[in-house]
Amino acid sequence: MRYSQYLLPTLKETPAEAEVISHQLMLRAGMIRKVAAGIYSYLPFGLRSLRKMEQIIREEMNRAGAIECLMPMANPAELWQESGRWEKYGKELLRFKDRKSADFCMGPTHEEVITDIIRNTVNSYKQLPLNLYQIQTKFRDEIRPRFGLMRGREFIMKDAYSFDLEDSGADTSYQKMYQAYRNIFNRCGLKYRSVEADSGAIGGNFSHEFMVLAESGEDGIVSCDSCEYAANVEKAELIYADSVPPVATQEVQKVDTPGQKTIEDVARFLQVNPQQIVKTLIVQTSNDEVLAVLLRGDRELNPIKLANLLGVDWVLMAEEEVVQEATGAPTGFAGPIGLSIRVVADAEVKTMADFVIGGNAVDVHVVGANHGRDFEVSQFADIRQAVAGDPCPRCKEGKFESWRGIEVGHIFKLGIRYSEAMNATVLDAQGQAQPLVMGCYGIGVGRTVAAAIEQNHDENGIILPMPLAPFQVLVTLLNPKDDQVREAAEKLYQQLLDLNIEVLLDDRDERPGIKFKDADLIGIPLRVTVGARSLKEGNVELKVRESGAVTMVSVDEIVVQLQQLVAQGLAFTLEK
Amino acid sequence: MRYSQYLLPTLKETPAEAEVISHQLMLRAGMIRKVAAGIYSYLPFGLRSLRKMEQIIREEMNRAGAIECLMPMANPAELWQESGRWEKYGKELLRFKDRKSADFCMGPTHEEVITDIIRNTVNSYKQLPLNLYQIQTKFRDEIRPRFGLMRGREFIMKDAYSFDLEDSGADTSYQKMYQAYRNIFNRCGLKYRSVEADSGAIGGNFSHEFMVLAESGEDGIVSCDSCEYAANVEKAELIYADSVPPVATQEVQKVDTPGQKTIEDVARFLQVNPQQIVKTLIVQTSNDEVLAVLLRGDRELNPIKLANLLGVDWVLMAEEEVVQEATGAPTGFAGPIGLSIRVVADAEVKTMADFVIGGNAVDVHVVGANHGRDFEVSQFADIRQAVAGDPCPRCKEGKFESWRGIEVGHIFKLGIRYSEAMNATVLDAQGQAQPLVMGCYGIGVGRTVAAAIEQNHDENGIILPMPLAPFQVLVTLLNPKDDQVREAAEKLYQQLLDLNIEVLLDDRDERPGIKFKDADLIGIPLRVTVGARSLKEGNVELKVRESGAVTMVSVDEIVVQLQQLVAQGLAFTLEK
Repeated sequence: MRYSQYLLPTLKETPAEAEVISHQLMLRAGMIRKVAAGIYSYLPFGLRSLRKMEQIIREEMNRAGAIECLMPMANPAELWQESGRWEKYGKELLRFKDRKSADFCMGPTHEEVITDIIRNTVNSYKQLPLNLYQIQTKFRDEIRPRFGLMRGREFIMKDAYSFDLEDSGADTSYQKMYQAYRNIFNRCGLKYRSVEADSGAIGGNFSHEFMVLAESGEDGIVSCDSCEYAANVEKAELIYADSVPPVATQEVQKVDTPGQKTIEDVARFLQVNPQQIVKTLIVQTSNDEVLAVLLRGDRELNPIKLANLLGVDWVLMAEEEVVQEATGAPTGFAGPIGLSIRVVADAEVKTMADFVIGGNAVDVHVVGANHGRDFEVSQFADIRQAVAGDPCPRCKEGKFESWRGIEVGHIFKLGIRYSEAMNATVLDAQGQAQPLVMGCYGIGVGRTVAAAIEQNHDENGIILPMPLAPFQVLVTLLNPKDDQVREAAEKLYQQLLDLNIEVLLDDRDERPGIKFKDADLIGIPLRVTVGARSLKEGNVELKVRESGAVTMVSVDEIVVQLQQLVAQGLAFTLEK
Repeated sequence: MRYSQYLLPTLKETPAEAEVISHQLMLRAGMIRKVAAGIYSYLPFGLRSLRKMEQIIREEMNRAGAIECLMPMANPAELWQESGRWEKYGKELLRFKDRKSADFCMGPTHEEVITDIIRNTVNSYKQLPLNLYQIQTKFRDEIRPRFGLMRGREFIMKDAYSFDLEDSGADTSYQKMYQAYRNIFNRCGLKYRSVEADSGAIGGNFSHEFMVLAESGEDGIVSCDSCEYAANVEKAELIYADSVPPVATQEVQKVDTPGQKTIEDVARFLQVNPQQIVKTLIVQTSNDEVLAVLLRGDRELNPIKLANLLGVDWVLMAEEEVVQEATGAPTGFAGPIGLSIRVVADAEVKTMADFVIGGNAVDVHVVGANHGRDFEVSQFADIRQAVAGDPCPRCKEGKFESWRGIEVGHIFKLGIRYSEAMNATVLDAQGQAQPLVMGCYGIGVGRTVAAAIEQNHDENGIILPMPLAPFQVLVTLLNPKDDQVREAAEKLYQQLLDLNIEVLLDDRDERPGIKFKDADLIGIPLRVTVGARSLKEGNVELKVRESGAVTMVSVDEIVVQLQQLVAQGLAFTLEK
């Protein structure tokens, strides 16, 4: 492709609308343009990266035995009413009426449509297992679309759905997808972790997220420094060494703590360590229960663990008036003594004695408190957020390291939730109708490209790994008006095209400085500069975008060298 | 691909919902399934054909210098208000509101979005010409979606938009697309015609439709049997030999024609030829004019020619009360004598004398009528539908042949309609802002596959040409339980896969009769049957789906023979 005939509108300034670096760089590098909030056009340069991601996904899904299909974006309400989601799904489900006032939604995911297809085409267990996938445009009417392709409303997703007769088959389908996903993200050349994720009300350990590591990631991840265990902090399990039960040595006693509200304030004021404080959170559940939750002062509640423990959909911090009613004091002074609501504590609290708690009155705390003696805890359980340094629950030898990550894939064992609701059954070997056991598997295509940029950039621009880069080689023609230079660049361009190397020739009538700045911004992995001075010595300049390494290479050797570098950059590395 | 692990649900019965053969066969061959009226899922087998069509389009568009991008389906109202189409576009434009009550529509076409992109990224004539295309899912809320993929509501389309500084450049862009389209449809292996089409109010001869020839086609086409001229009958021009002006020889006279309403009735009753009758149609225009239109008795009005002649958007047959008011009689007896409305006649009428006309009274006609003497015609012009046998207006030597066709592509010179409305300008060499001259170019992807089936099928099923067939070779394994037969089929399957031949292995545990019926139905171009009997003699059976030709081929030669046949089937034939 010749830059002069291409549409690659780079921007010098960072657009004000873009908060995160990938969004800024995708706009500046002419990859995307905003059409409306959370809705983008993919310009040619950006589309090339997306297509590469799609092709890697397609090849690995096919290799894993999944079959590609394509479902519509307009979904009739009837199917969503059958699954029960027409009512349950919030406003992210964009509902609309057609000209005949029939109800439709824009598909944010396609469990309903695929389950309808399968129940109408598959009758016997002999036709199983099946795994169908599509790469398709979805719409989710996010209340706060942001970060460019990271959280858009209209976006391209690969979604796959597996169907098995039995649970064990579904587990095998799941494992195949797990491996396919590892292959996909390995092939992208990204640093990522596959982590155990919360599977919510569905149960089982059958949910993994694939997280591209980046400091700007929205998700916290922990991984063991000794074994393979890795998990979203929302999910990461914790173990507690069996310690000698602590013995109370202090009397319980109220103390005045005027103006001390935070854990840090109280610790400083009472000259104790935050680890000697137990904080009491008043929470409300989706079942309308109000309860008190105890955690060591320096710990954070993991609301998902707590919700799972309680068997509810969600827990939230209680509103001010609820706290007042439950504790007799405003937020910030709650303590477990004398409460009439259920008290649940993090397992770690069980090992604590003689601690500080809130006094259920303004500016009052209690010291020397002990559970079992001063108040009762109905249940101790793992309900806190994991942090770096926590011991690994799997190997019990390593310790957690912590990372930030961007979720780009999620695989999930669904079980029979949709097949039961929609009566999708097959006959088993005994002629009995059995509900299909399903799994679902998603990858955000545009989000992966954006995450790749979050992970791979510098102050000058994008540094996409070779497998996702829009072009593999940039040939910068420095002096378009110098016949000899032009001919050398054109010849190199043609040689690379003939080898099926994806090459962009910057043949624009622009100053070298502009060409170099654009080159760094758009981040094509290999740049060859053809200029009059070096050409006189029979050389061109090769710059590797990632390392910044610059070498002079003879005109006779540059093609072979580029060919090798491209092949290296595309090599499927098994682990990163 | 192994049939036993694939989702290819064939149907024995023709689904009642399907009226046309391509729709019936695509359902029966497991290519598509209906989700809602005009909304389909593409099952794996159907998607393969669509993807092949897309790939052919992509390669030829790229070869022609067009650049691929991707625009969103959700379009904000603001852009459509700028172009003026938000109000003008009828109910086919599906409008909806997002959760914040902002107005959007589902893009039925993307002139607005692409023009917005270009006006924001292109400033100078030096960046031109540009031609951007996408292969994208569109939505048009058709009042009567039908015929499967032929007229759906949600459908995949390739749409391209060219931008030039000047008219002459736009003409060049148009010609490139004309040639790209010929390449595309040639490569599909389809019999088609590129025909001149009506370009409506925009003017110029710059609109061509690409019509796949099929008896079931909705469009009429004429083409010259001597030169290259071909046109939609809506558009086809007609010429009239300069003949000696006719001389009136009869007196004008009223005759009773009791109960004779149609042209045929009157001709029989008066013992004249329909060619001696002039029929009078009372029409209404979009400008609210009522006028009388004269045609030779056996001719059909071409309302588009008439509308273009009058400079109006459309003409329609007048309603009963309008006819009554204009002629004093009900529909069926109109004649030009004594009318107070404008009378327009087809040019052919100018050459007629002593003809029969309506009498403007029930059961009355007039014989011996002559224009100029008995009534005045304000204008003679070419306003009738062309038919087979009409002389060619281009070479003036050949005669028209007529065909039925399915419109699968349409190219159009738009001019500055959108760029003016949306203020999309570039600076020319003199630094003056000039509105961009645009063209737009569409191909219905799914419709082309459906049209290919309309053109290529027999009573047993589909006969897709090799370039669009989902698989190239079907290997039918007759006796899966016979080790020797199974091994031979598996070996052949593997050999073909290794050669990148797209092969489906029918390894199902089904009776031969079922396998053969399915094979004919799904219409893979080449079928190899591996069975115990022929294998004993070292042979397999090769059947060509299109010709039905069956030959026994030695196991040693079958791979090479298949390779040759596949290559032949894919060969780019320049003209069909």
